[in-house]
Amino acid sequence: MKFAYAMPTKVIFGRDCVKEQGALLRTLGDSALIVTGRSSAHNGALRDVEEALAANGQDYTLFDRVTPNPAVACVREGVQLAKAAGADFVIGLGGGSPMDAAKAIATLAVQERADDEIFAGGYEDRALPMAHIPTTAGTGSEVTPYAILTNDAMQTKTSITSYAMFPRLAFLDGKYMLFLPQESTVNTALDALSHAAEGMLSRNATPLSDLYAEESLRILAPILPRLRGALSADDRDMLLYASCLAGMTIAQSGTTAVHGMGYYLTYFYGIDHGRANGLLLGETLRLCCEKGLAQADRILRALHLADADAFCSLLSSLLGRREDIPRERLLDFAGRSVSNKNIKKSIYEPTAEELARIFLRSFA
Amino acid sequence: MKFAYAMPTKVIFGRDCVKEQGALLRTLGDSALIVTGRSSAHNGALRDVEEALAANGQDYTLFDRVTPNPAVACVREGVQLAKAAGADFVIGLGGGSPMDAAKAIATLAVQERADDEIFAGGYEDRALPMAHIPTTAGTGSEVTPYAILTNDAMQTKTSITSYAMFPRLAFLDGKYMLFLPQESTVNTALDALSHAAEGMLSRNATPLSDLYAEESLRILAPILPRLRGALSADDRDMLLYASCLAGMTIAQSGTTAVHGMGYYLTYFYGIDHGRANGLLLGETLRLCCEKGLAQADRILRALHLADADAFCSLLSSLLGRREDIPRERLLDFAGRSVSNKNIKKSIYEPTAEELARIFLRSFA
Repeated sequence: MKFAYAMPTKVIFGRDCVKEQGALLRTLGDSALIVTGRSSAHNGALRDVEEALAANGQDYTLFDRVTPNPAVACVREGVQLAKAAGADFVIGLGGGSPMDAAKAIATLAVQERADDEIFAGGYEDRALPMAHIPTTAGTGSEVTPYAILTNDAMQTKTSITSYAMFPRLAFLDGKYMLFLPQESTVNTALDALSHAAEGMLSRNATPLSDLYAEESLRILAPILPRLRGALSADDRDMLLYASCLAGMTIAQSGTTAVHGMGYYLTYFYGIDHGRANGLLLGETLRLCCEKGLAQADRILRALHLADADAFCSLLSSLLGRREDIPRERLLDFAGRSVSNKNIKKSIYEPTAEELARIFLRSFA
Repeated sequence: MKFAYAMPTKVIFGRDCVKEQGALLRTLGDSALIVTGRSSAHNGALRDVEEALAANGQDYTLFDRVTPNPAVACVREGVQLAKAAGADFVIGLGGGSPMDAAKAIATLAVQERADDEIFAGGYEDRALPMAHIPTTAGTGSEVTPYAILTNDAMQTKTSITSYAMFPRLAFLDGKYMLFLPQESTVNTALDALSHAAEGMLSRNATPLSDLYAEESLRILAPILPRLRGALSADDRDMLLYASCLAGMTIAQSGTTAVHGMGYYLTYFYGIDHGRANGLLLGETLRLCCEKGLAQADRILRALHLADADAFCSLLSSLLGRREDIPRERLLDFAGRSVSNKNIKKSIYEPTAEELARIFLRSFA
């Protein structure tokens, strides 16, 4: 047995945690850049943060122009604002896009990189300290060291990472999700499900990432079939906890084939990230079952599902009508996926033919 | 659901991890104080560390005079040596005693405290950065923010803590335990068992501490009955992993009644710490079963044991002949335990009569 483990983020979980423990933000600095999207004002999270900062006597500047699947230009804009405002810490607030943008801004604010070197890796262990507050239950970004950005040169999404990109603090409060639109609830839950499952299917899985992943799946199991119904406050809390566990999973294992393939659906068709994963997850797990992967059985067992068919049915019930994507485009995506770095991290690395089969069957 | 989670230690687990990843020590400083006991030279850990430091071009000073259940005087000696040598980081190497001493030294080297204030709490978040290398599988100290020292004023052992007492790095290699004497193997495994069980019986248990605890118990279950037989290298690894998980448990939950009571056995009778816990654990769990605690059932289930009797039998088979302790001394210990802070953290807080019953039955 050989593995490494690291997840240094302090997690504060529970109703009104920002209000009750906002004093912890004091340890991060004097002046915050709050990084968020345009809709952040509606769920109450921004108000809670602003009140906590005011109570702490901390300044802040608001950068609320993060768009879904943030591009480098958006990050540059945030960096410029952080520097102009003299921000010495960053608060990421929202779904995966604002949190990922916040991590990239916190990093590029202290490490210069030319545009064509953004995705070249080798980041030093330095970033402005961060607190993250998720307002969806899916990305898990609050407990990972990854920022996933749109990579136009490669026509996909690509992660950048360094240890310093782990947020110092994560505040998790399910109340911010109480009025989340159903589509966002489903898509982000599919993202969490994908993190847990892909983490278990990763060559870099560890005993601890598997422990988190299986617990995440066990928690998701009874809620997934009810995602399109009314969800209680407890359901929201459990979805958020499962999403955090799935984030802690991929913080160790990374994501694998499904994310690697899904990025093309998002880049070329604008399909929501979590939905893109959900669309491809069923056929990917089916392949792993066919290849006899013990991990695939463990995933099904944790979800209390009998086989890959049951898993695919569950996903279909959540996904509804699938997008119409021409066969040649799907084959193009399969071809692009062959050399994708996430796919190479899969315990079973699908062949070119198998990747094509997954794409075609997922949209059959 | 409301909880906090923090465990910032980077864990490097596996055969020859110090040799292969010793370069990580470079990030801690220029000059180490190695804190260990007299026997550390025998298991190869000290040599591995010295070679890693030499390869890194780092200086070090050896403090190898840590005694079991370290007292404040021992810590003072280490602090003096650290200051005289200009050490800017600390390596704790050995069982719980050297690791706990290392934490206290790393803290008191940067925070002045009079002797009568050592146990007064309120430590600031500052300590010399640390790497820990356990050479027993039981204490879990490598992943906790606690240092437990002998407290002569209170005639017990007492913990001191601060967030900065979490080691930055923990190197876990089961090879250091291959020739551990059977008695030490049993006693330290009982300590790990106690951490996992007590963590689940704590008012401060969290979803994550329970996740770690149950996994630790599941791993210990098949090995415990074989502890007095020959153990394979794999068994050693799994004991070490289970011990680390149990440490991660109490890093969240703290220890509870068993540790609180056991410290008196160690202080007044010199009974090994892990053994002291093992002696009291069975009757404590029996009480929790009688009180209908769901957590007690979960502990038994994770261990694949039918009831408290089966648990007590397992412990007795490992403990062998129990110490002769006069009834009045046991009652004295029970009386002292009533106001112990660990006992007050138990979900079910035993009454004075119940504490007396636990002590008396444990030595019947």
